[in-house]
Amino acid sequence: MSGAPDGALPTTVADPLPAPEPRTFDDVRAAARRLGDAIHRTPLLRSSFLDRALGGRVVFKAECFQKIGAFKARGALNALLHAKEDGRLPKRVVAESSGNHAQALAWSAARLGVHATICMPGFSSEIKRQATKSYGAEVRLSDTRSEAEAECKAIAALGATLVHPYDHDDILCGQGTATLEALEDGPRPDAIFAPCGGGGLLSGTFLAASGLAPDARVFGVEPEIADDAFRSYRDGRIHRFDESPETIADGVRTLSVSARTFAYIRQTAGIVRVDEPAILAWTQWLTHLLKATVEPTSALGAVAAARWLRDNPGATALVILSGGNLSRDTRARVWRDDAMAGLPS
Amino acid sequence: MSGAPDGALPTTVADPLPAPEPRTFDDVRAAARRLGDAIHRTPLLRSSFLDRALGGRVVFKAECFQKIGAFKARGALNALLHAKEDGRLPKRVVAESSGNHAQALAWSAARLGVHATICMPGFSSEIKRQATKSYGAEVRLSDTRSEAEAECKAIAALGATLVHPYDHDDILCGQGTATLEALEDGPRPDAIFAPCGGGGLLSGTFLAASGLAPDARVFGVEPEIADDAFRSYRDGRIHRFDESPETIADGVRTLSVSARTFAYIRQTAGIVRVDEPAILAWTQWLTHLLKATVEPTSALGAVAAARWLRDNPGATALVILSGGNLSRDTRARVWRDDAMAGLPS
Repeated sequence: MSGAPDGALPTTVADPLPAPEPRTFDDVRAAARRLGDAIHRTPLLRSSFLDRALGGRVVFKAECFQKIGAFKARGALNALLHAKEDGRLPKRVVAESSGNHAQALAWSAARLGVHATICMPGFSSEIKRQATKSYGAEVRLSDTRSEAEAECKAIAALGATLVHPYDHDDILCGQGTATLEALEDGPRPDAIFAPCGGGGLLSGTFLAASGLAPDARVFGVEPEIADDAFRSYRDGRIHRFDESPETIADGVRTLSVSARTFAYIRQTAGIVRVDEPAILAWTQWLTHLLKATVEPTSALGAVAAARWLRDNPGATALVILSGGNLSRDTRARVWRDDAMAGLPS
Repeated sequence: MSGAPDGALPTTVADPLPAPEPRTFDDVRAAARRLGDAIHRTPLLRSSFLDRALGGRVVFKAECFQKIGAFKARGALNALLHAKEDGRLPKRVVAESSGNHAQALAWSAARLGVHATICMPGFSSEIKRQATKSYGAEVRLSDTRSEAEAECKAIAALGATLVHPYDHDDILCGQGTATLEALEDGPRPDAIFAPCGGGGLLSGTFLAASGLAPDARVFGVEPEIADDAFRSYRDGRIHRFDESPETIADGVRTLSVSARTFAYIRQTAGIVRVDEPAILAWTQWLTHLLKATVEPTSALGAVAAARWLRDNPGATALVILSGGNLSRDTRARVWRDDAMAGLPS
């Protein structure tokens, strides 16, 4: 079965796997206790200009100020701390990642004296490799993503524990602590917007909201050209890209969600798709208004929230800004064309 | 007399004017009380990566998170609040500015119900004009800076009170509250670095340090190609550029310091000159490491602090980051070339 409307990349639909035992709000709360002050309680940012322009209220959870510059520090550290709590802390961990999970696992492992190997594809940016090494991890470079994945599996077969970036209960519950904090610290939102790549952040966001804001509508947000979660939500079966979509939002280039995350995603209010020009324009505007570093993936939620407020005047939206790690190339792309003449519609 | 070494722009040296009655630390403390919570107590930012790389400790006072996105909100509001306290609040204020002072005066005037006219030269960026208007000010556009200055004087002659961006006691004491907060909130610095344009921020920084960190060495920092304060400090007489130097650090394109600010500047530990490639490189690095929006003027202090730490290993430097208001054009220039391969020396 193919699901490629509007000339987008084709996806394939796999036979459904059973989802594991579902986690609950209590698991997110336990993760928050476990993490304690090892992570930052990141600030909530507002812009009175933006609220006036949109006719509502938007609260931004600024995970760019999190350890390693992204929410991923939460999940990775929660996974290792939970293992330690249960007396099963591994001596060695391994992951394949070109992005924020690489740094998150490297940082978490260093805190706990665990050896980390990160397998990165050659197209990963030099700055992310440097950062990963600076946390003490061993970085293995491969030409392609497939080769990096193969090396990761080989290292795991030799005894290192694979820490998956999203298909992992402790990871998704850890990511949910960002929303937990936002709901404890800020106003009660009518809707919550989180980017959706593999679905770890969105799953955790859903669980956190289920306990503290059960009436809020939780939306995942995806680039139009990377809309596998949208197709999966629509059809009730997981769509998978054969190759990574080339969106500027590099945090959500994942090929598909997993059976584990899909079990939560299908309970959300839906997946919103946004176009590349809007992502670029909102990356510029958020950087300008909030004075915080906003990676394009962070802008996804703002695009969706702005459009949602048009139909819900006076309402309050919570937007999870995923992080602030951009390569110089991505920054140059973001600022090449001027989108600052007026707020994007 | 000419003072143009190394092919830099020529300056002229004017007959010295008498400096007014000097202000003291108590005036900065009074400004802080007056401002109260109308301004933000901005955070101090650190980077453990940077501290390790530089072999010392650098604390950044992040005025990009200040009202209007720059420290200028402090001085402008202090000037109007002090006038109100003394029963001399004007009905109308006017200023000539293409930058952060325009927004600062517009914002402060709106808070106090005062009508503000801002005269801007045509080369000012659309985004700064929009921001100034959004605070309720009347914006008058002129073709050139000279014409904007002439219009500003004409409006002042009709009865509006001119609020000068730096040649004003309440302005410079207000700017000093940024350093006051940093010294109250952070570790005791061995040296303090602030950008020097007209010298308002540097004068206030000097006054704040004189009360709370009298042993700290206070340095002004300037682009090599805009080194009028350096020449003035060296010669003990004020040098003035005939035209604005074309540095990327657009917050310090001022033609000269004033007799008022020079009275404090000559008591500092000196003026450090930094080159344009270093300003660009450090703008990239600070943005990357701190996840905050750093205008090139903000990077001046970091360049000087990094070099100073080479000669003072293990010492603590306080760097005042002036603000985070960049036009899209400036951002595109900042990110055009890649300076992220290694920390600049």
